[in-house]
Amino acid sequence: MKTILIGKSKEVVIDTEGPVVIIGECINPTRRKRLVSSLQAEDFSYMLELAKSQIDAGADILDVNVGYPGVADVELLPKAVIELQDQFDIPLCLDSPNPLAIEAALRVAKGKCLINSVNAEEASLRSLLPVARQYGAAIIGLTLDDDGIAHEPERRLKIAEKIIDRAVSAGIKQEDVIIDPLAMAVSADPYACRVTLETIRLVHDRLGHNITLGASNISFGLPAREDINNAFMAMSILYGLTCPIANPEKITGLVRAADLVLARDDFAIRFIEHYQSKQL
Amino acid sequence: MKTILIGKSKEVVIDTEGPVVIIGECINPTRRKRLVSSLQAEDFSYMLELAKSQIDAGADILDVNVGYPGVADVELLPKAVIELQDQFDIPLCLDSPNPLAIEAALRVAKGKCLINSVNAEEASLRSLLPVARQYGAAIIGLTLDDDGIAHEPERRLKIAEKIIDRAVSAGIKQEDVIIDPLAMAVSADPYACRVTLETIRLVHDRLGHNITLGASNISFGLPAREDINNAFMAMSILYGLTCPIANPEKITGLVRAADLVLARDDFAIRFIEHYQSKQL
Repeated sequence: MKTILIGKSKEVVIDTEGPVVIIGECINPTRRKRLVSSLQAEDFSYMLELAKSQIDAGADILDVNVGYPGVADVELLPKAVIELQDQFDIPLCLDSPNPLAIEAALRVAKGKCLINSVNAEEASLRSLLPVARQYGAAIIGLTLDDDGIAHEPERRLKIAEKIIDRAVSAGIKQEDVIIDPLAMAVSADPYACRVTLETIRLVHDRLGHNITLGASNISFGLPAREDINNAFMAMSILYGLTCPIANPEKITGLVRAADLVLARDDFAIRFIEHYQSKQL
Repeated sequence: MKTILIGKSKEVVIDTEGPVVIIGECINPTRRKRLVSSLQAEDFSYMLELAKSQIDAGADILDVNVGYPGVADVELLPKAVIELQDQFDIPLCLDSPNPLAIEAALRVAKGKCLINSVNAEEASLRSLLPVARQYGAAIIGLTLDDDGIAHEPERRLKIAEKIIDRAVSAGIKQEDVIIDPLAMAVSADPYACRVTLETIRLVHDRLGHNITLGASNISFGLPAREDINNAFMAMSILYGLTCPIANPEKITGLVRAADLVLARDDFAIRFIEHYQSKQL
């Protein structure tokens, strides 16, 4: 199954057969004070720097989250999109809990964006599916619903199916629903990663959809986070993760290695290119 | 299924449910000139250094290979075993293509060793299975036979079954056969790792035996080998690899992370202990 996203000029195909597509996570105010203060001043230069460094490090798509407590991103998100698309070609992933901000951003965005995110709560489905349909956007479907986050992989699978069904009923193409099986911190729940891995396997084997994951937080609160993130990322890719949301500066080498090992990189071209770009 | 190995005093259980047991690969003359020259002089001090540094880095078992071109290890291997067991408690994995060297080493070794390796060639089965039976050793069964190395995972599975059948007929306990599904360089064959991964999955799911792998060579000839080895190691562990033969100084962090992610490390105790030991 293929999900096609389009930026100002560039098309990116996310294919369930791989290779892995990286969604850069760094345009996000969480733990980035400098981004908050610059955005508060409507100064987008640091955001654009973050965009460039992520693209240089291997990002194929940019997640754009400019919300922070006390400030509505309904005005800021469309402005950020305009600034980013003025300079960069790759597709954007519009990241906000506020459906109005998503819609405002879609109104000004060129190409075909990804919405981060829809979940199976009635309020989310009702507000965002018509918007996605209207602007021709793809969506990330988070596997949680009005009952919260389920701990059973089979239950998360059911929630994914519900989102897909509702999206298709709303006129969205099936392949435009990318499932996020949710990754939680393993320090808080020892089974957190296992549940996620098993959900990935189920979604891949039974539904065949593309799968994303905000994978960096699984190691929250632990030392040597890179080892944990690397192990989990490789396992997730083996089971069917195709478009992780992550920091490309930290994860691209491992992701390229995973594709190489899975015979998705003829003559190791992409792996060696990434290695060489880091040497420059 | 559990394979129990015993050193001079220490017992190590390799369990198909995990956690992963690390077999240290560094006592091996390949690309270690200093080991060759010291062994030629029957000076074991460097070998003992390699043993200690590997144990400090997380090795649970030590592979012992003291063979090099032009020198028979039939005399050297037993001497090396005596020297190692004089100082260290953990089990040994006797590594030689020469059955006479293996037998000579088993004759002097304390505890219960692992033989690296038996394969499905008639000559190998006939010479080594009776020896393993006689000395109560466990064996690594390499999935190759008189026809060489098969490229189809199903064929490698059949070879594994053959080794297990023959071993059991020779009076060896089934759980004392650890299967090596063979890992080849991905630079030589893009599908090399995929074939190995699929063989691991088949052996784990259908036979339920412990699985080992000399995993470092898959990245031969490529840059950034650690990324490739990390990705492949994590995937292999997810599918059922339980006792890799590797350099503990390079792989223990990733292996501990894999166990953590797979909920085999309560409260992240082993992961954090390893991290702290590296800080000292």
